[in-house]
Amino acid sequence: MSPVTNSVRSRIHLSVVGSSLASPEEAAVAERVGREVARAGAVLVTGGLGGVMEAASRGARLEGGLVVGILPGTSRIEANPWVDVAIPTGLGEARNVVVVMAADAVVAVGGEYGTLSEIAHALKLGKPVVGLATWQLARAGRPDTRIREASSPEEAVRLALDLARAATVRGSRL
Amino acid sequence: MSPVTNSVRSRIHLSVVGSSLASPEEAAVAERVGREVARAGAVLVTGGLGGVMEAASRGARLEGGLVVGILPGTSRIEANPWVDVAIPTGLGEARNVVVVMAADAVVAVGGEYGTLSEIAHALKLGKPVVGLATWQLARAGRPDTRIREASSPEEAVRLALDLARAATVRGSRL
Amino acid sequence: MSPVTNSVRSRIHLSVVGSSLASPEEAAVAERVGREVARAGAVLVTGGLGGVMEAASRGARLEGGLVVGILPGTSRIEANPWVDVAIPTGLGEARNVVVVMAADAVVAVGGEYGTLSEIAHALKLGKPVVGLATWQLARAGRPDTRIREASSPEEAVRLALDLARAATVRGSRL
Amino acid sequence: MSPVTNSVRSRIHLSVVGSSLASPEEAAVAERVGREVARAGAVLVTGGLGGVMEAASRGARLEGGLVVGILPGTSRIEANPWVDVAIPTGLGEARNVVVVMAADAVVAVGGEYGTLSEIAHALKLGKPVVGLATWQLARAGRPDTRIREASSPEEAVRLALDLARAATVRGSRL
Repeated sequence: MSPVTNSVRSRIHLSVVGSSLASPEEAAVAERVGREVARAGAVLVTGGLGGVMEAASRGARLEGGLVVGILPGTSRIEANPWVDVAIPTGLGEARNVVVVMAADAVVAVGGEYGTLSEIAHALKLGKPVVGLATWQLARAGRPDTRIREASSPEEAVRLALDLARAATVRGSRL
Repeated sequence: MSPVTNSVRSRIHLSVVGSSLASPEEAAVAERVGREVARAGAVLVTGGLGGVMEAASRGARLEGGLVVGILPGTSRIEANPWVDVAIPTGLGEARNVVVVMAADAVVAVGGEYGTLSEIAHALKLGKPVVGLATWQLARAGRPDTRIREASSPEEAVRLALDLARAATVRGSRL
Repeated sequence: MSPVTNSVRSRIHLSVVGSSLASPEEAAVAERVGREVARAGAVLVTGGLGGVMEAASRGARLEGGLVVGILPGTSRIEANPWVDVAIPTGLGEARNVVVVMAADAVVAVGGEYGTLSEIAHALKLGKPVVGLATWQLARAGRPDTRIREASSPEEAVRLALDLARAATVRGSRL
Repeated sequence: MSPVTNSVRSRIHLSVVGSSLASPEEAAVAERVGREVARAGAVLVTGGLGGVMEAASRGARLEGGLVVGILPGTSRIEANPWVDVAIPTGLGEARNVVVVMAADAVVAVGGEYGTLSEIAHALKLGKPVVGLATWQLARAGRPDTRIREASSPEEAVRLALDLARAATVRGSRL
């Protein structure tokens, strides 16, 4: 038996990033994103707190998915109630780097500057980013199209999974 | 339904720390530690690499336990094959802090200076540490007894679980 | 004598962020930014590597300024030759958080995704950000104006210093 | 002109580590350590807070030395008044790794578990550690002699400088 074959680890990991203070619409979108992640058999990674993170976690758990929360503080207690595996880091803002490092692709739902930092770190690390009503980027007047905008939670997850698989295949060819 | 009640997160988390280059004896001890952690229904957390980390992970997985690996590098690929939930941090040495932050108690098996750093961070954070043929500490000529030495893997895990439960109860009374 | 009064620490600290692979134009702009930082008596903080970081460091040093470099790797050797105080962190990408944490305001010159992450962390931390041909942000179709665009290096530094002083005064009133 | 030649960066950097709650004796020892570091023309690096860190910083500053403080929190304000270059990291405990990463050798004065973590990280990174009434280590009953115990602050700094220079020479031969 190869222990990795049927391991959690061999599954695609998707990070869902967004504000800890979500509007009802954002929360509804994030919950649908979480549901789709779980239905696809992928592992959901978030920053483990409230708002978009909590709604996505709830969606994934209600579909029987596995939810990992990478926390900024020093205790598992701060995780939202839907997180299965809670990792307190004590790193404050620097935990945002770990949230995206742990993922094969990132889905951003709305979001404030913390979310923007996660998008930026993901793009720096070469990881696909799909957005739902999130940041749009331009440099020196020219739009940057590395954030792929999706029109629905379902499309966002499908696209993120496709891009994650393609990136993994390219990675393993190296 | 309270989602936390039957969550992975509500279980005791034990970190097993030790060298990535274990002797056969250390590996055998670490595997027994991992087995006991899983049998007790606790979550095993390690640094995710080889040696003591791999042996403990193997022990826990063979008993059906859940194994979390907090990695120093940037990819899940570097995790040993028994890790379920692999968290690459890209933090290098600083990931040692996260390994103990994620645990309620720490079991140290042998170990080099990296292990000593994990023991020290755990004690600084007020987390119980149980040792198996690991570091002994003294200050200004006086022994420091905060590392509780156990005589067998089974005793080490039992003691760590007892201390973790006691610490959690104290914490929740605050 | 109050030791802080004439300390380096009481001076404004400005971080200059930008790509490690700068175009000649960006390098020229960054060098002028560094010169102005030093002329104003402020401390220059950068990520310590090449490109924009090196050009700004060179500018500041040639004007007799103090240059701090917060490095991603584990050795002072990787710092560009104009860094006075080199701090290797071993944190990889997470060092970007420290680069902006150490500053009262940030000037961004051009830049790739790493620079965007520094801008985002700075804005999350409530620190002023001034841009020179750098990222433009929008959310859900609406421009975000928190990055103040300057038309010259001299204006960028003047604006960053003004905003840093105003933020410090507000902070000390709390 | 080679900018590095007369740069701060080309000087030996010594980290002085110890408790933030020092006894009067420890503070007196730490201040003498700081004085010697400055007299030798080396840069003093500490964790930037009180106790041993503050006493060493005071000693170095009173001799005209340069003092770098690597802080666990998010603001320069938390630095002791003798720190010249204050680097807030926001990393909490993980800043201990940076404190020793920034040094060529470490002098430990007394100290609690945080200090032990810094000693351990330094030894893991291959950096010389000299102790003054600090931790003594043993493994499986055998003393570990990597912490070189000194009998006076002056001897501690002399020994640390010698070991740092030797390590640097070996490093540059590679």
